[in-house]
Amino acid sequence: MDKLRVAVIGAGYWGPNLVRNLRNSPDWDLVAVCDLDPARAAKVIGDRSTVAIETDVSRLLEREDLDAVAIATPPRTHAAIAIAALEAGKHVLVEKPLASNLEDARRMVEVAAAQNRALMLDHTFCYTPAVRHIRQMISDGVIGDVLFVDSVRINLGLVQPDVNVFWDLAPHDLSILDFILPSGLDVGPVTATGADPLDTGQICVGHATLPLPGGGIANISVNWLSPTKIRSFVVGGRNRTLVWDDLNPMQRVALYDRGVEVTKRPDDLAERKQVNVSYRMGDIHVPALREAEALGLMVAEFAAAIREERAPLTDGHSGMRVLSVLHAIDESLATGQPVAPHKEVTV
Amino acid sequence: MDKLRVAVIGAGYWGPNLVRNLRNSPDWDLVAVCDLDPARAAKVIGDRSTVAIETDVSRLLEREDLDAVAIATPPRTHAAIAIAALEAGKHVLVEKPLASNLEDARRMVEVAAAQNRALMLDHTFCYTPAVRHIRQMISDGVIGDVLFVDSVRINLGLVQPDVNVFWDLAPHDLSILDFILPSGLDVGPVTATGADPLDTGQICVGHATLPLPGGGIANISVNWLSPTKIRSFVVGGRNRTLVWDDLNPMQRVALYDRGVEVTKRPDDLAERKQVNVSYRMGDIHVPALREAEALGLMVAEFAAAIREERAPLTDGHSGMRVLSVLHAIDESLATGQPVAPHKEVTV
Amino acid sequence: MDKLRVAVIGAGYWGPNLVRNLRNSPDWDLVAVCDLDPARAAKVIGDRSTVAIETDVSRLLEREDLDAVAIATPPRTHAAIAIAALEAGKHVLVEKPLASNLEDARRMVEVAAAQNRALMLDHTFCYTPAVRHIRQMISDGVIGDVLFVDSVRINLGLVQPDVNVFWDLAPHDLSILDFILPSGLDVGPVTATGADPLDTGQICVGHATLPLPGGGIANISVNWLSPTKIRSFVVGGRNRTLVWDDLNPMQRVALYDRGVEVTKRPDDLAERKQVNVSYRMGDIHVPALREAEALGLMVAEFAAAIREERAPLTDGHSGMRVLSVLHAIDESLATGQPVAPHKEVTV
Amino acid sequence: MDKLRVAVIGAGYWGPNLVRNLRNSPDWDLVAVCDLDPARAAKVIGDRSTVAIETDVSRLLEREDLDAVAIATPPRTHAAIAIAALEAGKHVLVEKPLASNLEDARRMVEVAAAQNRALMLDHTFCYTPAVRHIRQMISDGVIGDVLFVDSVRINLGLVQPDVNVFWDLAPHDLSILDFILPSGLDVGPVTATGADPLDTGQICVGHATLPLPGGGIANISVNWLSPTKIRSFVVGGRNRTLVWDDLNPMQRVALYDRGVEVTKRPDDLAERKQVNVSYRMGDIHVPALREAEALGLMVAEFAAAIREERAPLTDGHSGMRVLSVLHAIDESLATGQPVAPHKEVTV
Repeated sequence: MDKLRVAVIGAGYWGPNLVRNLRNSPDWDLVAVCDLDPARAAKVIGDRSTVAIETDVSRLLEREDLDAVAIATPPRTHAAIAIAALEAGKHVLVEKPLASNLEDARRMVEVAAAQNRALMLDHTFCYTPAVRHIRQMISDGVIGDVLFVDSVRINLGLVQPDVNVFWDLAPHDLSILDFILPSGLDVGPVTATGADPLDTGQICVGHATLPLPGGGIANISVNWLSPTKIRSFVVGGRNRTLVWDDLNPMQRVALYDRGVEVTKRPDDLAERKQVNVSYRMGDIHVPALREAEALGLMVAEFAAAIREERAPLTDGHSGMRVLSVLHAIDESLATGQPVAPHKEVTV
Repeated sequence: MDKLRVAVIGAGYWGPNLVRNLRNSPDWDLVAVCDLDPARAAKVIGDRSTVAIETDVSRLLEREDLDAVAIATPPRTHAAIAIAALEAGKHVLVEKPLASNLEDARRMVEVAAAQNRALMLDHTFCYTPAVRHIRQMISDGVIGDVLFVDSVRINLGLVQPDVNVFWDLAPHDLSILDFILPSGLDVGPVTATGADPLDTGQICVGHATLPLPGGGIANISVNWLSPTKIRSFVVGGRNRTLVWDDLNPMQRVALYDRGVEVTKRPDDLAERKQVNVSYRMGDIHVPALREAEALGLMVAEFAAAIREERAPLTDGHSGMRVLSVLHAIDESLATGQPVAPHKEVTV
Repeated sequence: MDKLRVAVIGAGYWGPNLVRNLRNSPDWDLVAVCDLDPARAAKVIGDRSTVAIETDVSRLLEREDLDAVAIATPPRTHAAIAIAALEAGKHVLVEKPLASNLEDARRMVEVAAAQNRALMLDHTFCYTPAVRHIRQMISDGVIGDVLFVDSVRINLGLVQPDVNVFWDLAPHDLSILDFILPSGLDVGPVTATGADPLDTGQICVGHATLPLPGGGIANISVNWLSPTKIRSFVVGGRNRTLVWDDLNPMQRVALYDRGVEVTKRPDDLAERKQVNVSYRMGDIHVPALREAEALGLMVAEFAAAIREERAPLTDGHSGMRVLSVLHAIDESLATGQPVAPHKEVTV
Repeated sequence: MDKLRVAVIGAGYWGPNLVRNLRNSPDWDLVAVCDLDPARAAKVIGDRSTVAIETDVSRLLEREDLDAVAIATPPRTHAAIAIAALEAGKHVLVEKPLASNLEDARRMVEVAAAQNRALMLDHTFCYTPAVRHIRQMISDGVIGDVLFVDSVRINLGLVQPDVNVFWDLAPHDLSILDFILPSGLDVGPVTATGADPLDTGQICVGHATLPLPGGGIANISVNWLSPTKIRSFVVGGRNRTLVWDDLNPMQRVALYDRGVEVTKRPDDLAERKQVNVSYRMGDIHVPALREAEALGLMVAEFAAAIREERAPLTDGHSGMRVLSVLHAIDESLATGQPVAPHKEVTV
């Protein structure tokens, strides 16, 4: 099977990771790297290489030896580059978030559909073996109805002038929720709080609560100011609870066969008796997951979606659902009120 | 120095812990245990003992060989028992929460003042060496201005018919905040969210955000449905960040000399440049704290306050501040709005 | 069922733990505490108690209201006290090690047999739910043939003038091995090394290797000088490996369904090819064990053995097997040679 | 400064890691990769590259555009390749162990000296920030005299037909000891035990004790059969104890200001009193170490040693000291006796 030919646009923070994974992939032939600064592109490519360096996106898109582009430029530039690439007939992989506003995002999705080209979001975490496993455990009913989700993603972070901490970190949590929940990221009115205690001009610490269908809630905590790094994600279910600790390679995922069982209903409460709950103290099960770099699996999915002429697992629609919740978070931060996310308009 | 004479009222869930610590204390002579069920009292006392068993609080309070009582009965009974004991001239230690409503609490504080007797709250965690250390690190300026507090207190819990998960668990977090923050529990409008996904009739999972003076925020997560037990408490400061993990006896408290430093201000943002932040990646310092049961230190403080004729460290006023925030949480849960806690009326 | 009547002899380091557990037990009535120092005995008993204080063992043993004694005096005194007690018709529980030499130990076992009284060793760890589970997993074949055991038991310890670190700590490891291995503590020649780098007069750091039947080995590391506390015990088997970390209450025992599988034998090696091993990377299973204080389960077994007129699970013979290996360790330390433990002479 | 030109010989297990680090290094220009199997070399190099592929070492060594070679072939081939390269005027980096016997090793060292070329061992761990820090803490006297070292290096490992587990894993521990101890790897008679419980033809589980100058001991535990991965290294000193846990990136190194202090000497023991020891329960200090890949720092040292015309930090002599102890371990395994390592003959 011939390799697909790809160029990476943007050799800054994330681009080198894409370059490395595309180069190591059996699916991809990295043809060119494009950056305004040719020295930065050259550095990413390294010595003794014949990968091309481009400094102009238009010129890059004129190349005939390209099937696809991977865009790792700042979010506000995504829409223009992606649409140009799609109109040039290239498949497009774009870094999260899809765009800096919903209107741009919707146009990108529309052009991809019109051009019949793949538009894929690099929601990297959805390609980790851990998240694939969580999705499976939910869809198989092992976890049961989701009662609560607690996601904590904190570390010292790069305070950025044009986005707050939610826009930087929460796309990971939101895209994971979209991926694992049976109904996707279909949440009720979002309550978000945050603070900028160092007076940087951006919210640096934030918490958001998302009501889930069925009565549960998801909570997302993001923080740029924490000297400790935590990436924990807990899915509490009616049958079992799953804990994913991404910084514990010996035991990333653990499934607890424990929980609370309610055997009487609140109408018994009239009698002022204890609600009849019992605890199930069952075993813990730690599945053997393969250790694989998520980005490698992500670029494989990009190739597979193109070859099979189907939508990628994390397509433009998932990117739009994530954007909708980010906008609701911003509005809740501004007003102090719960805010319902815009439902995605089908395109 | 003669021992002070004490009785424990309530031999249910928490009473046996008070009995054990009062018996082991050089300050206290446990004279009696009082419970409606004499067999339960006898079981707590054990064989070959001359500690008295009482089944009636009025009769107990008539005893002349009693300096103080410790009340471990359900919250709604606290006010009546405590006021009777204070009026009988006994000093009073009461389990948290102080009372089931602010009006009762205020009367308890007033009677204690009128009778010139100690009214102490068993805010147990404030007596742990860890919390004492945190308070010191804040008052010494080692941590610096508090930017954020994250408190997580989750475990399988006993769903109760008359209180939600905030009333059960958050008094711990709130009393700690009251104890360590320079201005005590003086917080802005509280935003609380919660869920009862098992339909028990009570909120079982909850999150509350409390704005702190100076622009920071404290977040409290409580959960009765989690099969994993977490008790972590993080205080992020301008100078250093302190992490308290109460389930890690080898390293309960760690002080991180790391953080974000802002060297430019948001007015630079007009130029669309990165905010100029830098990271300080300093060392971690783990202080040697003595291992001591907090309840033992708490009963020692009760004796010391009586002997020195001063207010205990965790007195009725601290109990009222905690109650005010609990009420604000309940109102925020009911309305979806941020709710400012009632400021305590000086009595 | 009437309680059995017991006295504790020795109110020093370990005695108070026995007192507490016997008092809390439904099986036992603590009648007296005996110590040369009556103030020390009184302190252990506490106020408002009618438990008797004795200062003379002979007088204690004349009491008619005693079924058994628990001996927590220094090891060199065990034999005389235990034999006197057995001859007075009392059942005997003795702290580890059974005695300070094998000859004394053998006499104790003989007298217990002649008097038809229980002689039980307080091999506390054998009564933990963890060790009971390990024994079960081995006898059920879940672990398979034992390939290796690694036991590490280190912490700051009290350097003692009359015993080295092996005699202080290794009885725990050896009694556990005796309890869990299908053939008991039936080991080959022991190789022990040690050091006294602070020149205290006693070996403070030690390592011992014990060949197991079937070709495996057990290694025991003990250390009085380590500021970190480790109590880990790993049983590597042909089918699965079990890790017991006694300081991790959330996950004391984990069973790894992983290992090495050999599919070719060394005669293939003539061809200088890789031995054909494959890895099995299966799941990890963490069983739900009840949390119970081992000492409480130990005193329950003492009562049960007396009532059922049978040998206790950790009887005098197990104590003698442990002593035999301790002597072999001492001889290996002195000579630098592997030393076979004396096989226990049947009595 | 011009880059130095290098070729990697051996594209099997470790070669790709050398290729990656040499390519990413500002010091090195990777000219060629040499392997008997050109497809394997091509795979390591990747697409769109002009790095040369060689299949014959002699032909490779004839190239004039080469300053150095890095040898990652099986140990028994090291001597012949290294000597040919040195005689061709190339500097040589060789994987551990230096050679498969001391005689070969000595010849390699002699030829390097005669040719005035660098001969460096890839003792990778010596280039980790953690080991550099440990060396500093010992040489600065922060740790004090070394009382004990415990090194545990266990995991599922590739059972190999021509080396036992000590030859596979212990070179890491031994090279670290050689690097950090003030007198290098100058140890007394070595006691080693081991087992091959799966009958693979090679010792798969082993323990070795090495007496240190001054009365302390080092213990090394290696194991190919363990499903858990442990890499812990503890240096217990008279003043402080350092714990290095390489699998804990948040806290790789911790320095414990705790220990045992002896204030009386054993001659007091005649009186049968407790040795007068006290514990110091000081703080724990976790230094901020930079996170850097050790292999990258190692190839930088190789370049620096060549440019500065000095011996590399881990030179052929260190490789010979490690080999001497490995041979002593093998002899102790065979005889059951403690065996003194051959002291290195100066060349």
